[in-house]
Amino acid sequence: MRKIKLVVQYVGTNYCGWQKQKNGKSVQEVIEKAILKVLGEPCQVFGAGRTDAGVHAEGQVAHFETIANIYPPKLYHLINTALPDDIRILNSEEVSSDFHSRFSAKKKTYEYKFYVSDTILPLLEQTQTRVGYEFCYKKAKKACKFFVGTHNFSAFCASGTKVKDTTRTIYSLKLNKVSEKEYSLMVCGNGFLYNMVRILAGTIIEVGLNKKEASDIKNIIKSGKRELAGKTMPAKGLTLKKIEYE
Amino acid sequence: MRKIKLVVQYVGTNYCGWQKQKNGKSVQEVIEKAILKVLGEPCQVFGAGRTDAGVHAEGQVAHFETIANIYPPKLYHLINTALPDDIRILNSEEVSSDFHSRFSAKKKTYEYKFYVSDTILPLLEQTQTRVGYEFCYKKAKKACKFFVGTHNFSAFCASGTKVKDTTRTIYSLKLNKVSEKEYSLMVCGNGFLYNMVRILAGTIIEVGLNKKEASDIKNIIKSGKRELAGKTMPAKGLTLKKIEYE
Repeated sequence: MRKIKLVVQYVGTNYCGWQKQKNGKSVQEVIEKAILKVLGEPCQVFGAGRTDAGVHAEGQVAHFETIANIYPPKLYHLINTALPDDIRILNSEEVSSDFHSRFSAKKKTYEYKFYVSDTILPLLEQTQTRVGYEFCYKKAKKACKFFVGTHNFSAFCASGTKVKDTTRTIYSLKLNKVSEKEYSLMVCGNGFLYNMVRILAGTIIEVGLNKKEASDIKNIIKSGKRELAGKTMPAKGLTLKKIEYE
Repeated sequence: MRKIKLVVQYVGTNYCGWQKQKNGKSVQEVIEKAILKVLGEPCQVFGAGRTDAGVHAEGQVAHFETIANIYPPKLYHLINTALPDDIRILNSEEVSSDFHSRFSAKKKTYEYKFYVSDTILPLLEQTQTRVGYEFCYKKAKKACKFFVGTHNFSAFCASGTKVKDTTRTIYSLKLNKVSEKEYSLMVCGNGFLYNMVRILAGTIIEVGLNKKEASDIKNIIKSGKRELAGKTMPAKGLTLKKIEYE
């Protein structure tokens, strides 16, 4: 038995998310079927980030075990032959048996993309969320620093989620202006709660829209109340950029 | 009767191109129907660039005539209410009766986007064309300058096209590296023959792939032979960026 680590890129638009579900086609399931097809071996593929429906990945990491006698660095080309164009394995390598894509991960980086315009811009609309033109970049940028550090992020977790420990560490959170109308929020942390990045983005955008003050953030975190944080931004603007290990 | 100039952005993926056709849904037709719906007036919308099936536009220009008594700078918001999300009017203004979106145009700028990778990259694949990793940016860049100027571009026109004058002027043609894997070819000219930008891109990319020499370009132009130029690149990488007037 060998353990193989995969780096996976996908457009999330046509999937119910990473994880297998009873209803809907998941990225995990499509990759498992592709491996079954090319290696003739049923397997379970474990992903580092369980991205939601519509969320994209530039560098998702996954692992699976195989008895196939194939040179690991070439394996991804073989799996790719059985995948649709919106999912591709970018790399494959053998890892030690104690590696786990999710539990061994040290840092995860997500990007949330949005654009500012009074009308929909079709060329951006497919993969970015539109925000009203009254958005103030300077104000929103100020809000970012309050999130950095180790905090109880229960106010930034979809309500109804059953998770015991809602403490997470955010190593960095930066809002950048990409072009005249495009913005990118890049966040790196040791892990994220359900919908956390999309709620962080929603809160920061609301500061930019003058609906909240940057100085409110501290109290919102402290309160632990979901209803005080901003709204959950749409999935299409979110991309899992990379997973880092030791 | 007032003449209205529109700036139009669209994702070409789901259309048979700008121009109305018997089979297939065109951008022109969808806009004409939207205007009929909101103004109650049948009209003809003339576009500056007749983009092909799958080609996108960031700043297409079009015009139409109307008897509607609506403040022109606000008209685009009204038309947008009747358009699908992949087409949007970005601006509307009244112009003099002698304005014609196509015949008054002085400069047209197109961008051809491609990426270099040994595997499909799903996040880029939808709007860019993949080129093999043996592509040499430096070589391809050298090919660009040979196209600039006034030339008979009959070698760079889809064969079978009936057009008398195949002379066009290219004001500028630049290949830029946008990111580690992404490239953008930006070309500005007084007009382009059928498929001309996609054949220019194909020829320049073939120089980068060492299938042609930069110094061959002069002779290819001179020969007027379509078969000596590069292949026609796929439509999805092409975007009509802007149309300029006096």
